[in-house]
Amino acid sequence: MTSHPFDAAIALTPSGDHAWTGHTSAAYGNMVGPFGGVMAAQALGGVLKHPQLLGEPVALTINFAAAMADGPFEVHARPARTNRSTQHWTLEVRQQGEVVLTGTTFTALRRDTWGAVEHAMPRVPRPQDVPIAQGPKRVEWVNRYEMRFIEGGLPAAWDGRDLGESRTRLWLRDAPARPLDFASLTALADVFFPRIWRRRSVLVPIGTVTMTVYFHAGAQQLRDAGEGYLLGQAQAQAFRGGYFDQSAQLWTEAGDLLATSHQVVYYKE
Amino acid sequence: MTSHPFDAAIALTPSGDHAWTGHTSAAYGNMVGPFGGVMAAQALGGVLKHPQLLGEPVALTINFAAAMADGPFEVHARPARTNRSTQHWTLEVRQQGEVVLTGTTFTALRRDTWGAVEHAMPRVPRPQDVPIAQGPKRVEWVNRYEMRFIEGGLPAAWDGRDLGESRTRLWLRDAPARPLDFASLTALADVFFPRIWRRRSVLVPIGTVTMTVYFHAGAQQLRDAGEGYLLGQAQAQAFRGGYFDQSAQLWTEAGDLLATSHQVVYYKE
Repeated sequence: MTSHPFDAAIALTPSGDHAWTGHTSAAYGNMVGPFGGVMAAQALGGVLKHPQLLGEPVALTINFAAAMADGPFEVHARPARTNRSTQHWTLEVRQQGEVVLTGTTFTALRRDTWGAVEHAMPRVPRPQDVPIAQGPKRVEWVNRYEMRFIEGGLPAAWDGRDLGESRTRLWLRDAPARPLDFASLTALADVFFPRIWRRRSVLVPIGTVTMTVYFHAGAQQLRDAGEGYLLGQAQAQAFRGGYFDQSAQLWTEAGDLLATSHQVVYYKE
Repeated sequence: MTSHPFDAAIALTPSGDHAWTGHTSAAYGNMVGPFGGVMAAQALGGVLKHPQLLGEPVALTINFAAAMADGPFEVHARPARTNRSTQHWTLEVRQQGEVVLTGTTFTALRRDTWGAVEHAMPRVPRPQDVPIAQGPKRVEWVNRYEMRFIEGGLPAAWDGRDLGESRTRLWLRDAPARPLDFASLTALADVFFPRIWRRRSVLVPIGTVTMTVYFHAGAQQLRDAGEGYLLGQAQAQAFRGGYFDQSAQLWTEAGDLLATSHQVVYYKE
């Protein structure tokens, strides 16, 4: 246990077979309830701490089924199928007996194979040449991340202008800096503000309903990334009928694609 | 019940609370077991046929936990959380008591809102100007789809040349043609052959381990699409340690983005 607020936020106490107890963290508070990225990391924690865990996370899907109340919660992580070198997990988070989060995780023993990054990191200025985002923070969790926007920051004015495009690129890392691991990478994959705010320059009410993270790197590559910056990129593909998607990539400064992520977000109007 | 082989393949018989029985279809047979897209559609069927269903599918994640044997299977679809206008489902498919597939689905009542397709359909020739793919079919399910490759078809030679890129674009629809619905769109999202075959010109053993489909259209738009062609595009972002991802888009001929999809695929070597 370190003194980092992220480690405090994702701490879990065993509370039965396949079950753990955690507590929401004010340090990662969102508009309503906690920051979803930390909730996802807490749920994944039930797998990462499980004595039957085989291998490392390769894919994670988290569904935000209901608003989580500030307070305690239970994580349930159960191996649904264990094969020779792979394992499939089902996840649930409950509060007062009600399901607030569902999910699945796929873990595997990674092997050395041919490899390539096909989605190359775009050419961007170095982190130290991009200013840290300042200004008022609407929600507490944003203070737990250092963000250096290269393009596609929050609109300068909420004037309802359709910008025709929703892409954001930024350098980011935990604040204070913290060595990267699967839990923090999961949360980092959810750091991007909702694409509809960027696209339409309007602060419509939103909420992520489902998020999937694909981990393209193993524990050793995450250790190698250390406390370095990640280049994050996020963009929507379609908005319709109250839901839009956003896809994201996270590269190391050296251009290694550590994770890709996809989510569906509810929006009003 | 029509006489279309897809409807026969996804037929389910109620077999208890939240449970259905189905049977694999030789018409959609793959190298080992059935075509994954049809398995995903069968699992989603447990939700689509469920008397408690609220709304329409917005997101679906399917994990292929083990090879499915030819024969009967049980679909278990349970509403984990029902809200005012949204519902979260957990899915399992079992054979002889063992879990072979896990998943989650998010359904919702769609509302009229502002909307936009941000990932525009690329400029491509019309379906009738692109020849139908001919040649030997290694597996039966491929005969159930009409495919017209615009670019990125199967390599002309399996010579191990790294093409540096894995993108495929093709027109596709059921064969024989069949009116589009959520089940067939789910299967169509898995039609793309593995990106690593294209990228490396090598027929390495592969298997999808997880697939997520985001439905950007409601039932009315799918009805409007009818038996028309869809433009499919698929590309990988990263290959490493025995797993790669591929992301796909499916547009109508008019440029409407009906679905986006993402998957992680195991590969050997």
